Amino acid sequence: MKVLSSYLCGAWVTGSTAAGLLVNPATEEPLAEIWGGVDLGAAMAFARERGGPALRAMSFADRGQLLARLAKVVHGNREELLALAVANGGNTRGDAKFDVDGAAGTLAHYAALGEQLGDRRVLGDGDPIQVGRTARMAGQHVWVPRPGVAVFVNAFNFPAWGIAEKAACALLAGMPVVVKPASATALVAQRLVELWAADGDLPEGALQLLCGPAGDLLDHLRGPDVLAFTGSSATAATLRQHPAVIAHSVRVNVEADSLNAAVLAPDVELSSETGQLFLVDVVRDITQKTGQKCTAIRRVLVPAARADEVCDALRERLAGIVVGDPARDDVRMGPLATAAQRRDVAEGVARLAEATTEVFGGTGAVTPVGVPDGKGFFLGPVVRRTDDAAGCHAMHDREVFGPVATVAAYRGDPIEAAYLVARGGGGLVCSAYTDDRDWVTRFVPEAAGHNGRLYLGSAKMAAQSPGPGTALPHLLHGGPGRAGGGEELGGLRGVERYLQRCALEGDASVLKALIDA
Amino acid sequence: MKVLSSYLCGAWVTGSTAAGLLVNPATEEPLAEIWGGVDLGAAMAFARERGGPALRAMSFADRGQLLARLAKVVHGNREELLALAVANGGNTRGDAKFDVDGAAGTLAHYAALGEQLGDRRVLGDGDPIQVGRTARMAGQHVWVPRPGVAVFVNAFNFPAWGIAEKAACALLAGMPVVVKPASATALVAQRLVELWAADGDLPEGALQLLCGPAGDLLDHLRGPDVLAFTGSSATAATLRQHPAVIAHSVRVNVEADSLNAAVLAPDVELSSETGQLFLVDVVRDITQKTGQKCTAIRRVLVPAARADEVCDALRERLAGIVVGDPARDDVRMGPLATAAQRRDVAEGVARLAEATTEVFGGTGAVTPVGVPDGKGFFLGPVVRRTDDAAGCHAMHDREVFGPVATVAAYRGDPIEAAYLVARGGGGLVCSAYTDDRDWVTRFVPEAAGHNGRLYLGSAKMAAQSPGPGTALPHLLHGGPGRAGGGEELGGLRGVERYLQRCALEGDASVLKALIDA
Repeated sequence: MKVLSSYLCGAWVTGSTAAGLLVNPATEEPLAEIWGGVDLGAAMAFARERGGPALRAMSFADRGQLLARLAKVVHGNREELLALAVANGGNTRGDAKFDVDGAAGTLAHYAALGEQLGDRRVLGDGDPIQVGRTARMAGQHVWVPRPGVAVFVNAFNFPAWGIAEKAACALLAGMPVVVKPASATALVAQRLVELWAADGDLPEGALQLLCGPAGDLLDHLRGPDVLAFTGSSATAATLRQHPAVIAHSVRVNVEADSLNAAVLAPDVELSSETGQLFLVDVVRDITQKTGQKCTAIRRVLVPAARADEVCDALRERLAGIVVGDPARDDVRMGPLATAAQRRDVAEGVARLAEATTEVFGGTGAVTPVGVPDGKGFFLGPVVRRTDDAAGCHAMHDREVFGPVATVAAYRGDPIEAAYLVARGGGGLVCSAYTDDRDWVTRFVPEAAGHNGRLYLGSAKMAAQSPGPGTALPHLLHGGPGRAGGGEELGGLRGVERYLQRCALEGDASVLKALIDA
Repeated sequence: MKVLSSYLCGAWVTGSTAAGLLVNPATEEPLAEIWGGVDLGAAMAFARERGGPALRAMSFADRGQLLARLAKVVHGNREELLALAVANGGNTRGDAKFDVDGAAGTLAHYAALGEQLGDRRVLGDGDPIQVGRTARMAGQHVWVPRPGVAVFVNAFNFPAWGIAEKAACALLAGMPVVVKPASATALVAQRLVELWAADGDLPEGALQLLCGPAGDLLDHLRGPDVLAFTGSSATAATLRQHPAVIAHSVRVNVEADSLNAAVLAPDVELSSETGQLFLVDVVRDITQKTGQKCTAIRRVLVPAARADEVCDALRERLAGIVVGDPARDDVRMGPLATAAQRRDVAEGVARLAEATTEVFGGTGAVTPVGVPDGKGFFLGPVVRRTDDAAGCHAMHDREVFGPVATVAAYRGDPIEAAYLVARGGGGLVCSAYTDDRDWVTRFVPEAAGHNGRLYLGSAKMAAQSPGPGTALPHLLHGGPGRAGGGEELGGLRGVERYLQRCALEGDASVLKALIDA
């Protein structure tokens, strides 16, 4: 069987001990093995000694061109990557496109940003500031590459986009990357890096890949490094407390659990354009990637008077979703990615079920089409309901990472809605659907402090909305509290996580020359 | 004896158990007691339920006016605060002014920033971004107050400025503050808050003071809170690992140890204006606040050919420094702040002495003027020297927080200098003295990634330079790695640490109305 090798110190290497099996989650057919036991200290040193200096010698524009090349490689090998995502990720073709095209699009976005930042290695941050009695004594903040390594520990759900969105920001900033994708779905990530290594014009040491256990990777972290993690709060807590992270004040950027809410305002009729957008978004987020999106809607807050109608509409739409082998054209939703995921989601649904009533799908039992009897990590779409939004703790405090949402009734007041949204403990994205300017004006200031993104659905934008579940390269991805407190993407904001800000202080003409250099 | 009370839940309260004694560090005369055992859960709830809503209801301009009022109170009670700093802090009058006037100046700076930000509660971050096919589908990043509590754990060396620089940013952002000053020098902090509480027009719950042990304060931290700490790396490590910090992804902003370097470039004659600036800055940083400034120069890198001359000049200038009771007019340097500080600095000097030769002051033995025999936590100015800058680990890896610096010879190359600077593991500030544009152009990009601030000393700015040791409100204060990885001050940058960034996504006209509201 194929053994997934790692790309470390400029070569493809395989560890010495078996560490896991990759399967097709629809059929449980084995696809590849993953082995552990490679020299990660050497890889980190290689990044520091080769990758870092090479990238820092390039300008932002040069590094933008590198990203453009990486985007082109993704695009040029799209069909192969899509097929791997369908086989190894439980993705429908649509799900796979969301991942793979998202990767290419994000790289292209940051390639364009690099071109815009231009032929410079030091980036000004704000205008010169007079700090002395006269304009001669000045200050100027600048951004420079952090002189360390960017280490990524990635989630299983977006093997292509997950690497691309982090690497685009780090490489554009001038930091070399060591990425460890989640083992279960590493087939796409491994092939992607293989294609880039062969054809991406990557400087030596600029991007390394670890397929297998993290081993002692984090022991090698030092002060100028950045550790970026996407995954569960529990793993995030472990990483944050790692002795090297604590000892060296390593910058940690976490994107973790999020109980994203969708709020329907009382002005919206379900039959209206805004109402239809709301239904499309909720159903998409339950079913796309089998609900395994960190941005997916988990809590659906609707005015009490409309709760029955919303539940009826969701029931009707979800009944049309065919669950089964995602390689089939008629299938709209595939399996969960792993057996562990299946167990975890089933547990989460059971806990929700104790505190809620059924709207659709019971606790997720389903008969998938096109797979051998009893095989695959399937769980059908599940919608639960509570009429006690404030009292239903189960809906606010555990992210069920699958095709599961809970509808909760509220009175329709924007301040009440913001309070219920905040009960999630900090989220990546919250969506609100309204055409009432007064309602949104009262809602936004109360809700914004608890979320990294507020998606404001309305009739005027419905026709071109990507939905709240899509993390765009232009806009911040990350959120406070339970969501991990990190910041990714958002154009230059995401790049800044991999830059060091420094205040220059001195003679104004010297500072000006440094920025213009 | 006076017992320092805490200002919690709108009242002055005293704990139930004795927890420490404040003394005059020059005479060891007792000044006040500090007691522990107050209800910190109630204080955090008070901040959340009263202080937060009151501050968030105000605009940035309103909160700027509040800061102007606080600045005025500091200024109006300057003489009383200076006298307390001299008595409790071991400060000369000059040292005390640096702290107290720094507090007033920083508050005034942020008051002006508030006025400039204007009558708004939501702050735009960048321009609107087109995220759809047409300009109708847009994104707009905004800053809003974090809906939590800002908790400060402060250092002993700047009891007034330390509160002011953090509170200015948090209050302007709209976050209520709970501050715990270091017990040993809390007399100034306590009086400052007493004056503000009486006369500062503070909304209820906007600012609370804990005099005494931190107790269970951190147990009450939650996701929207911010924990800001200034002090040792060891304490920083403990705070970072606190279970509530880890569990809720609490934002932590640390300013810790820093082995700040001063670099003399080979073009500079000591007799030149730039050379004289260099000597003034080094001597000031060794003696001001008895070297107890986080920004003080600890490592002095000089071209080998000039090392003897630099040592001679330092010897001559330091010989004129009178050490003793800082209440006397003829005294230029007072004692260290505590007996523990005295022990720690003496240990650090002993460790340095093993790896270096003496330039001035031996290992710090001194006979202070005007104090009873054997009393006071005195240690005289110490300069050590090494001719093996790269090999002398002791000078690069332990911050000796007292009147101590080490002179090291280097070859004069800017890249070599930047490498040696980086050996400190990340610093708050590094100063370089040169009138050679080429040298500085090569030095800055290499050094900037390892420091929060680069102070570029030159003939043209010498006449109005505040020296590298002064943290200005306009410029970033904080640094990577050993320095803690935090960011404070820097105008709006410091305020952003207490704001939540949120991406708004939707119809462009809706977003515009929200920003203009």
